[in-house]
Amino acid sequence: MLAKKGHLYPMADDQIHPVILCGGSGTRLWPRSRAAKPKPFLPLVGDETLFEQTVARCARSAGFAAPIVVTGTAHLAHVEDQLAGDSEARIIVEPSARNTAAAIALAALRLPEHAVMLVCPSDHHITDCTAFQAAARAAADLAARGWLVSFGIEAKSPETGFGYLQQGEAIDAAGYRVARFVEKPDRARAEQFLAAGTYAWNGGIFAFRAGTFLEELTAHRPEIAAQVRAAVAKGREVGPEFHPDAAEFGKIANESVDYAVMENTDRAAMVRADMGWSDIGNWEALHQARGGDAQGNTAIGPAELVDCRNVLVETDGPRVSVIGLADVVVVVDGGEVLVTTRAGAQLVGKLGGAANQ
Amino acid sequence: MLAKKGHLYPMADDQIHPVILCGGSGTRLWPRSRAAKPKPFLPLVGDETLFEQTVARCARSAGFAAPIVVTGTAHLAHVEDQLAGDSEARIIVEPSARNTAAAIALAALRLPEHAVMLVCPSDHHITDCTAFQAAARAAADLAARGWLVSFGIEAKSPETGFGYLQQGEAIDAAGYRVARFVEKPDRARAEQFLAAGTYAWNGGIFAFRAGTFLEELTAHRPEIAAQVRAAVAKGREVGPEFHPDAAEFGKIANESVDYAVMENTDRAAMVRADMGWSDIGNWEALHQARGGDAQGNTAIGPAELVDCRNVLVETDGPRVSVIGLADVVVVVDGGEVLVTTRAGAQLVGKLGGAANQ
Repeated sequence: MLAKKGHLYPMADDQIHPVILCGGSGTRLWPRSRAAKPKPFLPLVGDETLFEQTVARCARSAGFAAPIVVTGTAHLAHVEDQLAGDSEARIIVEPSARNTAAAIALAALRLPEHAVMLVCPSDHHITDCTAFQAAARAAADLAARGWLVSFGIEAKSPETGFGYLQQGEAIDAAGYRVARFVEKPDRARAEQFLAAGTYAWNGGIFAFRAGTFLEELTAHRPEIAAQVRAAVAKGREVGPEFHPDAAEFGKIANESVDYAVMENTDRAAMVRADMGWSDIGNWEALHQARGGDAQGNTAIGPAELVDCRNVLVETDGPRVSVIGLADVVVVVDGGEVLVTTRAGAQLVGKLGGAANQ
Repeated sequence: MLAKKGHLYPMADDQIHPVILCGGSGTRLWPRSRAAKPKPFLPLVGDETLFEQTVARCARSAGFAAPIVVTGTAHLAHVEDQLAGDSEARIIVEPSARNTAAAIALAALRLPEHAVMLVCPSDHHITDCTAFQAAARAAADLAARGWLVSFGIEAKSPETGFGYLQQGEAIDAAGYRVARFVEKPDRARAEQFLAAGTYAWNGGIFAFRAGTFLEELTAHRPEIAAQVRAAVAKGREVGPEFHPDAAEFGKIANESVDYAVMENTDRAAMVRADMGWSDIGNWEALHQARGGDAQGNTAIGPAELVDCRNVLVETDGPRVSVIGLADVVVVVDGGEVLVTTRAGAQLVGKLGGAANQ
């Protein structure tokens, strides 16, 4: 598998190129997740970190190429550490955070036009790796034919914290046009979506040919496309790292790929994926992903639970003793103690401790 | 006020001699209260410790003599520290813990026969000091006439954790015979007691003449009386401390004053006391004694409470953030974290951390 002429990263025609995005700080899992050690780099479910699990899901043995990781300088050390052993992995170091449209464009410009990219957030949890890889293959097939493909995650509950994809007409056995992108709905609409069965959660996982993505970005956000090209043209390579030019990159507008491209293109497609997905978006979601004992309790670190149901305890040292509570999360980390109802978990990011790290 | 001949501690005839008992370890307020620094010596309500407040209530200006403190070697340093400045205070150091019958007998043997003692636990909280002193005076008047007087604390709720006194016929304007001592009742009986109005909580505060107490102890528990006499006879004085003989004292049976004397004597009397009393028996009781803000919340140490009602937070350093909870206690102390419902607070003493200090 030698690099083809003009291609920056080596590839085979049928490989899927994982583009792993390591962005945000995950304040909603404070105090466990901190600015200095954010969510993707923590072993939140199981022994591996969410980032390591994301890389492992995109295995060479399953037809994936070496990963391209897009991250910022703040997280670079974590990425290098947790990629250890993968000598083919490449890292694109963003000089500043400019959201997903720019991050994906950076990776697209470093790949040949016909290369199929699979864009994966690095902080999600997926229990069914086989289902993920099957969906990735179906999405890559559509992408190779010029579609911009979103993963439509099978909706399991009327979540109001996610965007939804409305499924349109079938393209092939596995793919559908996207009839409509729906912003986070209220509870009543979310329940309608769930009942209808033709809506899926927008999980932020995408497949497209690098060239197709850049064409669509240029069509709908010409300024962003030009600015990313300039940042890449003036960028520099340092071993496995590529550093776009900071001054050029800093000019780029902060826009999500959904808003900049997916909602505007008429080539938007979706594959449906039922793969035990969670964005581990807050302590309540993490509690669900972890499961629990017969009483629904789960504890990491020294803990004693008496007369408790559905209690999650996580402590980095101090013993936690809990009596008589239900549906509560207790987290002790780095000298901070959080006690919240599962419902209150959505407010964690707004706490003083989470906001002023 | 010179010492009368044969009397060990100086006194005036009309003075009340406070005998302050510093016994148990208070595991039900773990992790704040520990074996090494138990409940009486902590500033649980206000800036002074419960022990300091107990001493202050028995002020010389209100007709009390210098305090006699009965404690064990484990707590001696705390007692000396918190008595600092009272050069007349005396300390009786128990070689081992033998419950209240023996502890009170020690103090009685160190006082003249006609001296009136007021026995006070050192770990209660009383908001109305004037009412306490008035009740003490009324009790002392009865004691001077040969009665053994219990404080009958005005019952405010159908508590099942206290013993009760049933009020009998009136002796004078302030005193009554005790018709019956009632062990901790179940909820239904406690509610009957509260409705009847003729029952009061047994708060463990007593007044008697030293000689009367020793007579009654000798009548009902001759062995304990003889053993305490032997321990005192072979004891030694070290400055303000008196050390009963360890070998003799170690033989004494572990019995409460209620069980050994009060329930057997036919000279049991009571005064009623409505003085904002709490035994601070667990975190729930402490929460009530502290009160709270408009939402019933109270916090000591760095804390952030969001959407909380009736939440008590106490931390010795780590910040505590609480979201969405009601009627919950969160305590962080010495590397231990306790989270309990107010109802669950009664089980704290049985936690592994509290039991194995």
